[in-house]
Amino acid sequence: MFVFRRPVRFAEVDAAGIVFFPRYHEYCHDALEALFGELPGGYAALFRERDLGVPTVHVDTDFKTPLRFGDVAQFEIAIERVGRTSLTFYHTIRREADGTIAATVRQVVVMTTISTLTPIPVPADVRDLLARYQA
Amino acid sequence: MFVFRRPVRFAEVDAAGIVFFPRYHEYCHDALEALFGELPGGYAALFRERDLGVPTVHVDTDFKTPLRFGDVAQFEIAIERVGRTSLTFYHTIRREADGTIAATVRQVVVMTTISTLTPIPVPADVRDLLARYQA
Amino acid sequence: MFVFRRPVRFAEVDAAGIVFFPRYHEYCHDALEALFGELPGGYAALFRERDLGVPTVHVDTDFKTPLRFGDVAQFEIAIERVGRTSLTFYHTIRREADGTIAATVRQVVVMTTISTLTPIPVPADVRDLLARYQA
Amino acid sequence: MFVFRRPVRFAEVDAAGIVFFPRYHEYCHDALEALFGELPGGYAALFRERDLGVPTVHVDTDFKTPLRFGDVAQFEIAIERVGRTSLTFYHTIRREADGTIAATVRQVVVMTTISTLTPIPVPADVRDLLARYQA
Repeated sequence: MFVFRRPVRFAEVDAAGIVFFPRYHEYCHDALEALFGELPGGYAALFRERDLGVPTVHVDTDFKTPLRFGDVAQFEIAIERVGRTSLTFYHTIRREADGTIAATVRQVVVMTTISTLTPIPVPADVRDLLARYQA
Repeated sequence: MFVFRRPVRFAEVDAAGIVFFPRYHEYCHDALEALFGELPGGYAALFRERDLGVPTVHVDTDFKTPLRFGDVAQFEIAIERVGRTSLTFYHTIRREADGTIAATVRQVVVMTTISTLTPIPVPADVRDLLARYQA
Repeated sequence: MFVFRRPVRFAEVDAAGIVFFPRYHEYCHDALEALFGELPGGYAALFRERDLGVPTVHVDTDFKTPLRFGDVAQFEIAIERVGRTSLTFYHTIRREADGTIAATVRQVVVMTTISTLTPIPVPADVRDLLARYQA
Repeated sequence: MFVFRRPVRFAEVDAAGIVFFPRYHEYCHDALEALFGELPGGYAALFRERDLGVPTVHVDTDFKTPLRFGDVAQFEIAIERVGRTSLTFYHTIRREADGTIAATVRQVVVMTTISTLTPIPVPADVRDLLARYQA
């Protein structure tokens, strides 16, 4: 389980005053950046120095309770599956103030050489990192 | 079937140079605005004058081929189900230039009184509009 | 004078319910894309085939009246100066419904080879296009 | 002088691979949220409990060196003027890695009752906070 918190930003709401639904997937991206950011040099080094990234190939999301500006999205991220090239995460996103579930997201990403957009096997150091949070 | 086209904007890509995955759901929102926009006064009137909106409660999305700046996302939207308060759409999103499928999205929205965020039955004029595109 | 209209999108507001101020510059970008889009192949061809773009080097903006979802931003764009490599535009942005000025923006961009980010002289076809709207 | 650092996010670049120019003003907003966030309850409390905000009425910005994903925007914010209802900030934004100036922004905001969008005098606690960073 990896945990992450993300305050809702001022302009992430829509005209209804609630967080615009595509933003939750931006938060998921931020959460994965924070997770991979535990590698030396952070996520940016993975991208800039190793030409690696994790494009998303699938999401399955239930939006349950709207968040608003002033709320904090609290993530619990279960690493459901580490495949040869793909990774499956299950995000439980709560409103931090009271623990209400805001959304759940199953997200599948593929370890990818960015310059060619071709999948590659998940590197050993990434597997080790994920193993630490799978327990 | 409702059709819609949405050019990729200059800043909708990410550092990998491809459309950032949450943007596809923004495009779906734009597509539904265009669909409901066929009501008199457009989507904005639905929202501003009738206090109605269609918050998304579920998406299930496969990202298949990346789009880039210069591409146009071409939508074919099947109206799969019109329930009492909920609507289910299935978006097939193609790269306009060659017809390659970029993504498919099943999206469930709920007809909602925005000021209170409570579901309400789908109004007759909306049902009529959807029926025109269901055939 | 080049004219352009841009409806406010649903998620372009902030928690105060008004268009988030950086969005006006996104609209300016959209307006310039529409202007350069009158070249054969559109703005995307300028970018993808000729490796040219117009990064912004300066903006000077007064925000006068807030716009909201449902409003349309109506642009009148004066081409103030066509230099060797730089272009100066003055955008008057009105709320379409009543003509109230929402914002004014002076924007300076530089014709640039994108792959190297180096300035280049404004090409002849771009000068011709701009001359048509300067009169 | 108030200081603030803001890593460039993955999707804040444009098709040219550099931070899209309107994002710098989003960063300025984030910086001011961090500054006002030093009040008890943070910026969100100012907004949600006291119905106050600081809409931007003017920006004057020079974009000097592009930032990219992996860079961190480092802000030094001078409080140039505290008026009766308006506040003037001067942001010097550097690329953290080497201190190169990325942009400078003069930003004027107005203390405002959000529900009515009317200016009000800068409250005493805000004046005190700003005075601490003006020295």
